[in-house]
Amino acid sequence: MQIKFSRMSSRIKPSAIRNKLFDDPQLITFAAGRPAEGLFPVEDLITASQSMLSASGIKALQYSSSEGNDEIRKYIAEVLMKKAGVDVTAKNIMITSGSQEGIDLCGRMFIDEGSTIICENPTYTGALGSLRPYNPKFVGVEMDENGIITEHLEKLIKENDDVRLIYTVPDFHNPTGVMMSRQRRKELAEISGRYNIPVMEDRPYSELNYDGEYLPSVKSFDKEGVVLSLGSFSKIFCPGLRMAWICADEEILQKFITIKQNASMQCSSFDQELTVEYLKNNNIYEHIEKLRALYKSRRDKMIECLDKYMPDYVNYNRPTGGFFIWVTIQKDIDTTELLAEAVKQARVGFIPGEPFYADGRRCNSLRLSFSSVTEEEIEQGIERLANFFKERF
Amino acid sequence: MQIKFSRMSSRIKPSAIRNKLFDDPQLITFAAGRPAEGLFPVEDLITASQSMLSASGIKALQYSSSEGNDEIRKYIAEVLMKKAGVDVTAKNIMITSGSQEGIDLCGRMFIDEGSTIICENPTYTGALGSLRPYNPKFVGVEMDENGIITEHLEKLIKENDDVRLIYTVPDFHNPTGVMMSRQRRKELAEISGRYNIPVMEDRPYSELNYDGEYLPSVKSFDKEGVVLSLGSFSKIFCPGLRMAWICADEEILQKFITIKQNASMQCSSFDQELTVEYLKNNNIYEHIEKLRALYKSRRDKMIECLDKYMPDYVNYNRPTGGFFIWVTIQKDIDTTELLAEAVKQARVGFIPGEPFYADGRRCNSLRLSFSSVTEEEIEQGIERLANFFKERF
Repeated sequence: MQIKFSRMSSRIKPSAIRNKLFDDPQLITFAAGRPAEGLFPVEDLITASQSMLSASGIKALQYSSSEGNDEIRKYIAEVLMKKAGVDVTAKNIMITSGSQEGIDLCGRMFIDEGSTIICENPTYTGALGSLRPYNPKFVGVEMDENGIITEHLEKLIKENDDVRLIYTVPDFHNPTGVMMSRQRRKELAEISGRYNIPVMEDRPYSELNYDGEYLPSVKSFDKEGVVLSLGSFSKIFCPGLRMAWICADEEILQKFITIKQNASMQCSSFDQELTVEYLKNNNIYEHIEKLRALYKSRRDKMIECLDKYMPDYVNYNRPTGGFFIWVTIQKDIDTTELLAEAVKQARVGFIPGEPFYADGRRCNSLRLSFSSVTEEEIEQGIERLANFFKERF
Repeated sequence: MQIKFSRMSSRIKPSAIRNKLFDDPQLITFAAGRPAEGLFPVEDLITASQSMLSASGIKALQYSSSEGNDEIRKYIAEVLMKKAGVDVTAKNIMITSGSQEGIDLCGRMFIDEGSTIICENPTYTGALGSLRPYNPKFVGVEMDENGIITEHLEKLIKENDDVRLIYTVPDFHNPTGVMMSRQRRKELAEISGRYNIPVMEDRPYSELNYDGEYLPSVKSFDKEGVVLSLGSFSKIFCPGLRMAWICADEEILQKFITIKQNASMQCSSFDQELTVEYLKNNNIYEHIEKLRALYKSRRDKMIECLDKYMPDYVNYNRPTGGFFIWVTIQKDIDTTELLAEAVKQARVGFIPGEPFYADGRRCNSLRLSFSSVTEEEIEQGIERLANFFKERF
């Protein structure tokens, strides 16, 4: 007799981003969307941890609420009000351990086996990984340079049974870099309200725009209280603290709190207090300005190198923010197979396209991240990758 | 049309421990099993956070592995070897965000709707809360003063279809305070191995023995690699950091890592680094000695007051460790109903017995915690509770 595992566990696959192939220190890797660690505010956090522990050490070390620290929830609500145009208070915010937990909790809240999730195709592979255990039917909606094509979305809602959730990355879409237009955001929120199907908008990159304007969140157009807005400090502060949030209608949020209570009780009291203390004594927007300048120059460098080195059968977009460039090789090639060769021969890492598609299709695209590589590494890595393509095709 | 929620979400109930009734600051509450915060090592953590951030700030703020920090996994494996008699290495340890997350991940790994979980009856209500969303059939196994009656367990395994998991709190059982005997641990591991049904042993209180010996963990008797051992720093260090672990056979642990990766990516890098730094520079066993002394005197005081004040129709055990005393009122009374009265009239809080039973039975027992109340509060609170009983019955 063997140990019996759940059907749920059989659906779970290792993350394509946390691939052990990328552990080779000789690699120039454009794979993971890791923030540039050189800009982590280490000194400010030494100060903050000192003063926080002196003033409220016991609070930071004791159990705390499942919904999260009231001060940080208030702060997040205010930023959402001022910047993203969302009319909310602290009562609409629950802290999650990274947006990954937030996405998982949305799966738990809304998905039964066989119910439908509509998502961009391709979409963030981590979201697929997090939602797949609930065994939904994933249906891909078409996108253009303005994001989700809302006519197509509405068609899919009508054609598919039991649509429970619409997942989107509206700002600097992962992996394609597309910015959803204001008009499409409005239409998306309207469709969500009309059919009572929650939109889960995932906004890790919203503050990281390098050209062009910052757009209000999809939730800002939500009249029926059905849009869920997920945000995170991981890309604008530091991911090691796992500080993220779900913003939802109060009634839905109460359900999320109960779900979170049962699933993981609460987030780290310490990390929440530390973040509050940092935000009190530092202007995080000054910090974000530095990040923006750095990432902008890395993006510029990567585009410049792609223009300079890539053969003409390689196409790519020019994202106005975020971490990623989506590259398509106009050849009959599977980039999942190509990755092992590229690591071995060019010593360059990337994420192949396939894990970004819910249907796991053979795919001639790949994702490059410019966030955690220096301009020298970008120059060398893109040249090596281009040479590898030229030899290979 | 209404928003559709999952069936899973419909099974989720608010925690009986995080009841808003207990928020009244006038209350003397014996409800939550909160550690005594006066002994939190705040000064040592000020030092540790300074030195840790100076030496490895970037590591603490960046993404890190899903399995957890290698140093802390090594430390946990060594303690399990030396103290609990478990033959493991770091490769058998995964860090979880509190044992609550660990229990949830066990549900995800092993439970399908309708499959069976055998647990002590009563059992830890938080575990029931965490496992209930997976819709198992809970079956209660009988206990005596030596813990689970293994003959009854084997009978239940034969009588029930598709038993997937056996959940137990072997040390200072929550809520009854019972310590499972060495012989029963051995038999439990043998049964687990013989039927290939994983035991999930939950060991938050193992280091908190006040009289008598420390017993090896159930996993130490596990010859087939089927026992899962969950442990936590919450009760011996500080719960705000959410530092806990699953110890399992390497093959099973690899599955847990993939499940964790999809569910919440990783635990806080910061909290892991901080704990490592604290453990390097402090002898946590000196700290645990202080905790033991404090909790022992609080347990003694509570027993003394129960002996002194309670009428003879109130029975209770004398636990040799842990946080809890299990009190039974030999009257036809539902302690869930009694709680609201006790809060109002006696201004004393406790956890009623019902949420500790998987079948949610009407129950004349209640759980008292002595961990986070002073001896003065114990004296006053127990006297008030006893007077309330005397008036009420």
